[in-house]
Amino acid sequence: MSAFVSEIIGTMLLILLGNGVVAGVVLRHSKAENSGWIVITMGWGLAVMVGVYAAGIYGGAHINPAVTIGLATAGEFPWADVPLYILAQFIGAFIGACLVYVHYKPHYDATEDPGLKLATFSTAPGIRNTPSNLIGEIIGTFVLVFALLSFGANTFADGLNPLIVGFLIVSIGLSLGGTTGYAINPARDLGPRIAHAVLPIKGKGSSDWGYSWIPVVGPIIGAIIAALVYGILVP
Amino acid sequence: MSAFVSEIIGTMLLILLGNGVVAGVVLRHSKAENSGWIVITMGWGLAVMVGVYAAGIYGGAHINPAVTIGLATAGEFPWADVPLYILAQFIGAFIGACLVYVHYKPHYDATEDPGLKLATFSTAPGIRNTPSNLIGEIIGTFVLVFALLSFGANTFADGLNPLIVGFLIVSIGLSLGGTTGYAINPARDLGPRIAHAVLPIKGKGSSDWGYSWIPVVGPIIGAIIAALVYGILVP
Amino acid sequence: MSAFVSEIIGTMLLILLGNGVVAGVVLRHSKAENSGWIVITMGWGLAVMVGVYAAGIYGGAHINPAVTIGLATAGEFPWADVPLYILAQFIGAFIGACLVYVHYKPHYDATEDPGLKLATFSTAPGIRNTPSNLIGEIIGTFVLVFALLSFGANTFADGLNPLIVGFLIVSIGLSLGGTTGYAINPARDLGPRIAHAVLPIKGKGSSDWGYSWIPVVGPIIGAIIAALVYGILVP
Amino acid sequence: MSAFVSEIIGTMLLILLGNGVVAGVVLRHSKAENSGWIVITMGWGLAVMVGVYAAGIYGGAHINPAVTIGLATAGEFPWADVPLYILAQFIGAFIGACLVYVHYKPHYDATEDPGLKLATFSTAPGIRNTPSNLIGEIIGTFVLVFALLSFGANTFADGLNPLIVGFLIVSIGLSLGGTTGYAINPARDLGPRIAHAVLPIKGKGSSDWGYSWIPVVGPIIGAIIAALVYGILVP
Repeated sequence: MSAFVSEIIGTMLLILLGNGVVAGVVLRHSKAENSGWIVITMGWGLAVMVGVYAAGIYGGAHINPAVTIGLATAGEFPWADVPLYILAQFIGAFIGACLVYVHYKPHYDATEDPGLKLATFSTAPGIRNTPSNLIGEIIGTFVLVFALLSFGANTFADGLNPLIVGFLIVSIGLSLGGTTGYAINPARDLGPRIAHAVLPIKGKGSSDWGYSWIPVVGPIIGAIIAALVYGILVP
Repeated sequence: MSAFVSEIIGTMLLILLGNGVVAGVVLRHSKAENSGWIVITMGWGLAVMVGVYAAGIYGGAHINPAVTIGLATAGEFPWADVPLYILAQFIGAFIGACLVYVHYKPHYDATEDPGLKLATFSTAPGIRNTPSNLIGEIIGTFVLVFALLSFGANTFADGLNPLIVGFLIVSIGLSLGGTTGYAINPARDLGPRIAHAVLPIKGKGSSDWGYSWIPVVGPIIGAIIAALVYGILVP
Repeated sequence: MSAFVSEIIGTMLLILLGNGVVAGVVLRHSKAENSGWIVITMGWGLAVMVGVYAAGIYGGAHINPAVTIGLATAGEFPWADVPLYILAQFIGAFIGACLVYVHYKPHYDATEDPGLKLATFSTAPGIRNTPSNLIGEIIGTFVLVFALLSFGANTFADGLNPLIVGFLIVSIGLSLGGTTGYAINPARDLGPRIAHAVLPIKGKGSSDWGYSWIPVVGPIIGAIIAALVYGILVP
Repeated sequence: MSAFVSEIIGTMLLILLGNGVVAGVVLRHSKAENSGWIVITMGWGLAVMVGVYAAGIYGGAHINPAVTIGLATAGEFPWADVPLYILAQFIGAFIGACLVYVHYKPHYDATEDPGLKLATFSTAPGIRNTPSNLIGEIIGTFVLVFALLSFGANTFADGLNPLIVGFLIVSIGLSLGGTTGYAINPARDLGPRIAHAVLPIKGKGSSDWGYSWIPVVGPIIGAIIAALVYGILVP
C-alpha cells in the first residue's frame, strides 16, 4: 500500500513540475515564456529528481511504467507488483496534469493556440513520421533504462542516486528529445492526455489520439530491449 | 541566540544573491541584462544553496518563515522558537535587499521603469488574478515544504543536502515560477518590499502593497497543507 | 573481454548523446533547434557522464583513446591493452553515430545544408588554420587529461567521479570549445566521420577528410604532454 | 615548494578556462559567440572547480590572493606563506592568460573591437563609477570569503568541496557579477592585464590601467571584512 502511495506522490510531482515547465515556457504572459530548450530540459530533469526523492519516502521510486517493466524484465522487480505500480503512476500523472492546469489557469485562458495548450499535457513530434517517432521513443527509453540498470553496478554515496538520475534525464532531453519531445514514460504522456480530454480548458483543441499510442508502446519496447541487452552483457 | 544570528546571515545572503540576480537581469547596463529565465532560476537556486550552507554555521537553517511554520506544523520544530526565527528571517531579508540596492546603485539610477526596480525587491504576478495568484503561491510552497520533509526520509552524504535543496528551488522556479515569480517565502517578499518603501531609490514607483499579502499568506497556507498531508502519509 | 564490451557501450552512449545534442540543435524542425552553446556543452558533458557510468559496469571507463594513451603514458594503464581499448572506442563511436542518424532521420532529410549534417558527426573549426586548430586540440586535451590525472589525487565519495568528469567536459566545452568544437577525443571525431562517409545520408556533402587528422593527432599530443608534465610534478 | 607549484597550476587552469569562456563568447567566429551570461557564469564557476581539483594535487588550493589573505586574517593560514602563495597565483594567472591568447589567436585577429579583446583578459565595469565599482568588488568578495569560511563549518563528503565552491562562484557571478564583471580575485584581474600589456595582440587598445587598482583593492578589503565578521560570529 505504501509503495502505491509513493508512486502516486512521486509521479504527481514529476508531472506537476515537468509539465509545469512546459506550461511556463509556452503559455502567454508567463515569466518563463520562450525561455527555451535549456529551461525545458533542466526543468524535466529536476522534476524527475524531486519526484524520485519524494517517492523515496517509502523506498524505491519508479514513477514510470517503462522503468517498472524494464526492471521486471531484468528480474529486479516482481511482475506481480507491476500492475499496481503502473496504476499508481497513471493516477499520479493525471493528478499532476490537473494541478498544472490549476496553477497556470489564467495563462491557459490567455493563450490562443490549442496546440500549445496540448503541449503542456502530452508530447507531439517535431516531424510526424510513425516509424521514426516510434524508433525515437524506443531509443530514448533504451538509454534511460540501460543507464538506470548500469547505475545499479556503480556504488553511490547516500542520496546521490536521484540527483544523477535527474542529470540522466537532462542528458536524454538535450540529446534525444528534439524529435518527439521524449515522453520515454507511458504514464507521463497518456495520463496527462486523458486530463487534457477531460478538463474544461477554454479553447482547447484535439487531444491528438492518433499519436497517443507511440509514447506508450515505444517506451515499453525500449525498456524491454534495454533489460534484455543488459541481461546479456551482465548475466 | 546563535540560531538567531544564523537565520539573519543565511536570509541576508539568500536575498543579496536572489534579488541580486533579478537586479542583474532587469537593470540597465548590467552585464547580465536580459539574460533570461535560466539565469534567474539558477541564481535563486544557488542563492538558497549558499544561504543554507552559510546559515549552517550553527546548524539547521530555514531562512524562510514558511519552512519554519511547516516544520513546526509537522512537529519537527518547536512552536516556541517560531517567532524568533521569523523575526531573524525578516531582518536578514531587509538587510539583503538594502545590499542589493547598494551593489547595483548606478544601475538603479540608469533604469527608468519603476516596475523593473520593484521587481528587484518583490514579486509581482504575470497575470494579476487574486485567487489564481494565491493558489500559485500555495502550490509552489506545498512542493517546497513537502519535498523538504521527504528529504528527511532520505539519507544524504555529508554536505549534499543544501546542494539538493538548491536544485529543488531551481526546479520550482523553472516549473512553477512563471505565474507569480515564486515568492514561496514571506520574508523573501515582504522584507524587501519594506526596503523598497524605505530606501531613497531614484524614480521609484509604488511598492504595490495591494498585492503584498499574497506572497505572505499563500506560502504559509501551502506550508501547512504540505506538513499535514505529509503527516497523514508518514504518520 | 568485458572491458572491451564496456568501452564499446560507453563510447556508443557518449556519441549517441553527444552527437545527438548537436543534431538536436542544428537540424531542421528539431524542438532543440538553435538552442545554443549552453545546450551543446551541457549535452556533451552529460553524455560523458552517462557513458562513464554505463561503461562502469565492468569498472574503469576511458571511452576516449586520448585518455587511454594518456593513462598509459602516465604508467597508470598497461600499454598492451591500449590497442584493444582504442578498437572498442572506435567501434562504439561508429555505432553511436549511426544511432544518431537513425534517431534524427526525418530531420536529416529536412535539413538542406550539408555542412550542418556533417557537424552532427564530426568537428570543424570556427576559423580554418592548421597550426592553430592543432594547438587548440592539444590545449583542450591537455586540460582534460591533466585534470583527470589530478582527480586521482583527490578522494571522491562513491559515484561522484563520473559526475565531476561530466562537469569537467562542460568546462572544457564552454571555455575552449569555441575554436575547433573540442573533439579532444580521436574516436569521437574519426569514428563518426567514417559513419558520415558510409551512411546513405540524403544530400550529404564532403566528409572533410583534409581536416580529419587534426582531431586525431592533436588530442594524442595533448594527452601525452599532460601525462609527462603531471609525471614531472607528481613523480 | 609543492604548494607553490600547486598554486601556479591551479591558477593557470582557472584563468585558461575562465578567461577562455569570455574569449569564446566575445571573439568573432567562435562557436560560442554571443552565447550569453549563463555561459560566462557557468564557465567561470567550473573553471574554479577544475582549478581547485587540480591544485588539490598537493592539498589546499586557494588560487586567489583574496582567499589567501582572508584565510590568514581568519587565522586559518600562516601569514608567512602569504607572499609566496600570491606570487604563485600571479604567475599562474599570467601564464593562463597567455594560453588563452594562444588558443584563440585567429579569433583575436578576426575581432576588431579592442574593448572586447581586453575583456578576455581583465574586467571592466558596466557603469564606470569608482566608489560603486569598489563597493561591488568588496561585496562580491565578502560573499566569496564568508561562504568559504562557513563551508569549513559544514562537513562534506569526499571530493564534494570543490564542486560546491564552483557552484558558489556561479552564484556570485549570476547575482553580483553584472556590475563590475566580478573579478573578486586580484590575480585573476591584474595578472592577465599585465599579459594584455605585454602580448603582441593585433589591434589591441589600452590596458585600462586607471581601473586596474579596483579589482585588486576591492577584493582584499572584502576578504578582510569577511574574515573579521566571521571571526566575531564564530569566535
